Amino acid sequence: MEKDNLKTEILKKEIVKIFKKFGLSNNHALISSNALINAELVGAYGHGLSRLKMYCNRISKNLINPKPKIKIKKLSQSISHIDADNSIGFVAADIAIKRAIQNAKKTGIGLVAVKKSGHYGLSGYYAEQAVKKNLITMIYTNAPPAVAPHGALKSLFGTNPICFGAPTSSKIPFILDTSMSMINRGKIRVAARNNKKIPEGVALDKFGKPTTDANKALYGVQLPIAGYRGSGLAWMVDILSGVLTGANHAGRVKDPFDDFTGPQNIGHLFITFKTNLFVNNYSSRIKDNIKRVKKLPKIKGIKEIMYPGQNKYKRFKMNFKKEIKISTIIKKDLEFLKK
Amino acid sequence: MEKDNLKTEILKKEIVKIFKKFGLSNNHALISSNALINAELVGAYGHGLSRLKMYCNRISKNLINPKPKIKIKKLSQSISHIDADNSIGFVAADIAIKRAIQNAKKTGIGLVAVKKSGHYGLSGYYAEQAVKKNLITMIYTNAPPAVAPHGALKSLFGTNPICFGAPTSSKIPFILDTSMSMINRGKIRVAARNNKKIPEGVALDKFGKPTTDANKALYGVQLPIAGYRGSGLAWMVDILSGVLTGANHAGRVKDPFDDFTGPQNIGHLFITFKTNLFVNNYSSRIKDNIKRVKKLPKIKGIKEIMYPGQNKYKRFKMNFKKEIKISTIIKKDLEFLKK
Repeated sequence: MEKDNLKTEILKKEIVKIFKKFGLSNNHALISSNALINAELVGAYGHGLSRLKMYCNRISKNLINPKPKIKIKKLSQSISHIDADNSIGFVAADIAIKRAIQNAKKTGIGLVAVKKSGHYGLSGYYAEQAVKKNLITMIYTNAPPAVAPHGALKSLFGTNPICFGAPTSSKIPFILDTSMSMINRGKIRVAARNNKKIPEGVALDKFGKPTTDANKALYGVQLPIAGYRGSGLAWMVDILSGVLTGANHAGRVKDPFDDFTGPQNIGHLFITFKTNLFVNNYSSRIKDNIKRVKKLPKIKGIKEIMYPGQNKYKRFKMNFKKEIKISTIIKKDLEFLKK
Repeated sequence: MEKDNLKTEILKKEIVKIFKKFGLSNNHALISSNALINAELVGAYGHGLSRLKMYCNRISKNLINPKPKIKIKKLSQSISHIDADNSIGFVAADIAIKRAIQNAKKTGIGLVAVKKSGHYGLSGYYAEQAVKKNLITMIYTNAPPAVAPHGALKSLFGTNPICFGAPTSSKIPFILDTSMSMINRGKIRVAARNNKKIPEGVALDKFGKPTTDANKALYGVQLPIAGYRGSGLAWMVDILSGVLTGANHAGRVKDPFDDFTGPQNIGHLFITFKTNLFVNNYSSRIKDNIKRVKKLPKIKGIKEIMYPGQNKYKRFKMNFKKEIKISTIIKKDLEFLKK
């Protein structure tokens, strides 16, 4: 229905052109470009254009396969296994969520595991696709070492997000997409690039000392949310998306920015199921659920209790109408990559 | 193999006798007694004998059905829906996890939803059953209002634990069973009963002020872990175990201790799947995963990095050999209930 404004469309075409120049098919370039633009529009800049150069860099170093032979193995009507052949993560995830949707539509539940993939951006972006098809979804992915296990002085777990999506019977879906680290690695990168400080209590430097210096934090460890609980949840995500799927795990997922010793081999797990398996009035139940939470008395200064995904949707709506702002660094990246 | 020591066996028999006196079948009394004793042995006293009187109280008030007609609806080879007819939660959960195990063994994946259930103790207790059958499991349950949604001044979410179990190829399973509140409601209850303080930063009183007084916290709100992230995760658990299953949700689950206006109608969701769906060497992969985490450099004072479930297993092993200690209050409860 709605269209991107001109500048966004122009930018998207530029990115498609760049990805194609680096060997991606038109379709894969379009999928990847859409994901990057979406990240910009929802304000997740650490997953947006700031990564474009990195992707291209890994393609030219043969660490991302621009012409992957992706194998989809059907284990049952519900369960599929995808070997993404080191494709760019966006493409692997796009195929996987579509398959998970198909499987759930057929049998009520879908389970799709992916190995040999790469960084795919925001889990919530794929969750939205399932939710649009009126499915509930749970998505897990591992990531390069960033968070120290509880008690350890070295990073091993990735930011390992837990993502959950559910239809709300309104146009704004319930999309929880929460990293298990106190702060996103992407945000630290952006802060480092712009020489900005990071909040206190989210990271230690390489000597195990608290730091607010983004550059020091990149070489140190990020702290998990909620101490041992968050550490346990990040470990769970590593088992679900790494150990189970056949992908790298236990700290072996390579950092896409500075580890060129091999493909990332990230793993993902997608679970999908129908909302009406056990009740025939899911829509009115979820509506009622959200309404009751929103009606609670609020802490001073809070105007509205928001459900996960609501703020992101608002940002998207707002940014959609505006032109995408591009920093000088990213402008330089684009010029460099177009050459 | 191993046997409970005499005192534990005697205690178990006493509890079975009490439950039978209140109308439970021998089988249901045994299931419930085993769960309570297990909670004592792993040191989860808030889920143990301190609840016995509450259960009996609700049975005699017709809020727990001692002779439930539990209906199991088979939706597919993988998916089942259980109407627990307001049985004691232990029995509903026992049937559900066994069914989820069956379904996963048949098709690779099991999904079992339960409605009209009650408090079932520790999620991890059921996860252990699935893991013993070499399955991975994810278990969700809602609970009476205890945690304030982010931005709200009133509790609505329960402690809503996220539970995940995975075989480790050692005798100690990986069992993450983590409440979404900073502190378990059970622990606050035990503190209140014993006139002990609770830690700072875990609860507010009914006026929204921080408190360390357990009694005030019971009438106030518990804070979610990690702010908006934990609030979102607790909300997810309410959708999965309440909205989806047909059970109470959005703060309508009744507090078993002081709300006698109806059955609790708690909901649970059990997901199970085989470890070898996507890899044929899961055992060596999980062993390697745990080994690599344990080998990390440690924070000063930490002797070993533990995986979730390890400490609980140690406590169980230790307590198993000892007699169960019973407080004066619980002794009185037992005497009262036996009469």
